[in-house]
Amino acid sequence: MKDKIKIVVFGLGSMGSGIANMILNKKGFQIVGAIDMDPSKVGKKLYEVLGVEENEDNCCVVTNDANDVMKKGFAKVCIIATASFTKVVFPLIKMAAEAGMDVVTTAEEMSYPKALDKELSEEMDKIAKENNISILGTGVNPGFIMDLMVIMLTGVSESVDNINVTRINDLACFGKAVMVEQGIGLKEQEFIKGAKDDTVAGHVGFLQSFGMIEEAFGVKLNNIRQEKEPILTKVPRATEIVSVKEGNVVGCRQLGYADLGERLFITMDHPQQIKPELEDVETGDYININGVPKLNLQIKPEIPGGIATVAICVNMIPLVINSEPGLKTMLDLPIPRAIIGDVRDLVKDKK
Amino acid sequence: MKDKIKIVVFGLGSMGSGIANMILNKKGFQIVGAIDMDPSKVGKKLYEVLGVEENEDNCCVVTNDANDVMKKGFAKVCIIATASFTKVVFPLIKMAAEAGMDVVTTAEEMSYPKALDKELSEEMDKIAKENNISILGTGVNPGFIMDLMVIMLTGVSESVDNINVTRINDLACFGKAVMVEQGIGLKEQEFIKGAKDDTVAGHVGFLQSFGMIEEAFGVKLNNIRQEKEPILTKVPRATEIVSVKEGNVVGCRQLGYADLGERLFITMDHPQQIKPELEDVETGDYININGVPKLNLQIKPEIPGGIATVAICVNMIPLVINSEPGLKTMLDLPIPRAIIGDVRDLVKDKK
Repeated sequence: MKDKIKIVVFGLGSMGSGIANMILNKKGFQIVGAIDMDPSKVGKKLYEVLGVEENEDNCCVVTNDANDVMKKGFAKVCIIATASFTKVVFPLIKMAAEAGMDVVTTAEEMSYPKALDKELSEEMDKIAKENNISILGTGVNPGFIMDLMVIMLTGVSESVDNINVTRINDLACFGKAVMVEQGIGLKEQEFIKGAKDDTVAGHVGFLQSFGMIEEAFGVKLNNIRQEKEPILTKVPRATEIVSVKEGNVVGCRQLGYADLGERLFITMDHPQQIKPELEDVETGDYININGVPKLNLQIKPEIPGGIATVAICVNMIPLVINSEPGLKTMLDLPIPRAIIGDVRDLVKDKK
Repeated sequence: MKDKIKIVVFGLGSMGSGIANMILNKKGFQIVGAIDMDPSKVGKKLYEVLGVEENEDNCCVVTNDANDVMKKGFAKVCIIATASFTKVVFPLIKMAAEAGMDVVTTAEEMSYPKALDKELSEEMDKIAKENNISILGTGVNPGFIMDLMVIMLTGVSESVDNINVTRINDLACFGKAVMVEQGIGLKEQEFIKGAKDDTVAGHVGFLQSFGMIEEAFGVKLNNIRQEKEPILTKVPRATEIVSVKEGNVVGCRQLGYADLGERLFITMDHPQQIKPELEDVETGDYININGVPKLNLQIKPEIPGGIATVAICVNMIPLVINSEPGLKTMLDLPIPRAIIGDVRDLVKDKK
């Protein structure tokens, strides 16, 4: 039997701890390092932080000093689940790469980093190749439902006139950071001000999804524009994190548009809110390809954001290990798929 | 500007002529050779056979002698749309490969040829590598909706208990060969006899789809079994090709099952019939992944079989050209996507 695949998890927040749990539930992985800055976690054994039973795969000590684990030969893969932005995760990616680890990150901008950080992307590609490793950003969105799946569905299209993609999802399971990013709990006017000055960030991902679509089709989209609208509630809505009175903001509807030549080619509509069921809003993912043939795909309820992002990050690990070195996107690698058996059977360790 | 990509189309039946038409409607292709055995087509110019206006890309003469066009340097890619079975298309593939052409074929068994013809697959891989070309079999099913799309959807799965895939489609647009294969127009007892002695072939594809799924998940499925049931009509149904009285067979419901270990893992349900709307049967594609999370995908109406098979064959051409040499499946190549602009922009001619 081959050795277990050794993993370092950088970040044990909602996503990072979900990823750690999923990894530990699969055959063939071992988590050998865990990094987090939260003093309530540092110094504890990983299994304590995750609240699971101890075994040989989960008993590393959580550290706040990356140098403890970012060492040559320490692990095969580093998962980075700390932040959304390329510039913020770049130093961590560099550290992991230079320690010879493949990298998978949840950072939304990293799903297509060239969209905003061209030079940094070139640098990451260079670092990856110098260290003979691969780097991938992924997640459910961006990274899967509003880009990869859209591209793939057009594979059966003779011609495409335009594309509409809608993702109506529930944010109730997310933590405080997401509530703030989406402006949840604000009054309408506060949201409008925050949307303007970007303190209400909304969804990070449309520019990355458009970038991936441009590359897939070999075209240049233009007049790319985005809007953020408050979703106001008619009834009180509350989660464990936030309580919203009627009339106030329970979510952010993000809209994105891109033209091809003179005409509108892609419309993305992404209303995210807490407890949509309280106003009978049905969640779902919808992809409409208008062309020959007309294609209407739906996934109802929506692919759940939290679980699915955790899952795709873990599922991509063997494909990232098998990849040739470099900065990669979901377009470059084989299609994602679940890890059903022992992950070691999926690894063709050629590198 | 790069030279146009030169194509030979082998077979000008329903699929082959659809493929030729789609190729001619895209920028950057030229059809330089067309082969068909039908005396009513041989000797005519391609544009005459297709019923389109003449131009420099469609004016080759249809020949029944493959040696006229299967020559070194004559074309970049050969499309083979003549038959469903690997053994039948193999000599044509070999001829194209030895003439230095990449090959894309509609032959259903070629979507995963290892499932039934392991030695022939190895031979094709060897021939492809010797001649520095790539070979791909594809189509909407097998090749896309009941395998590739299923695999991809599990990419966001933390765990998968079992998978149900259903494709309810309309066969009304197809020709006589399909009607015979599916037993349409037979009496119930004739169908049951034909299903037993395989004169009613039903859907060719489940074994290939199961094979692709096995490879994607790195597992061995067992107890793979199939059933064919007649779809009997309560009302008269007719197409241009066939008229069916009430009580007789208007289609074939093919069922496929595969176990993982001791338990049922995949169920495929594929009722194909003419004019389902006459009994208010709604067509559609459905993928249900039972696990964490539970995922329910539907495409309604179904991805239309004829157009979509034409489209995916053409759309895969640049990806096949860009591929490293060998016998490939849809799992090996980047995800399919529509050709939106000039196909030459999608080709990284490294070979």
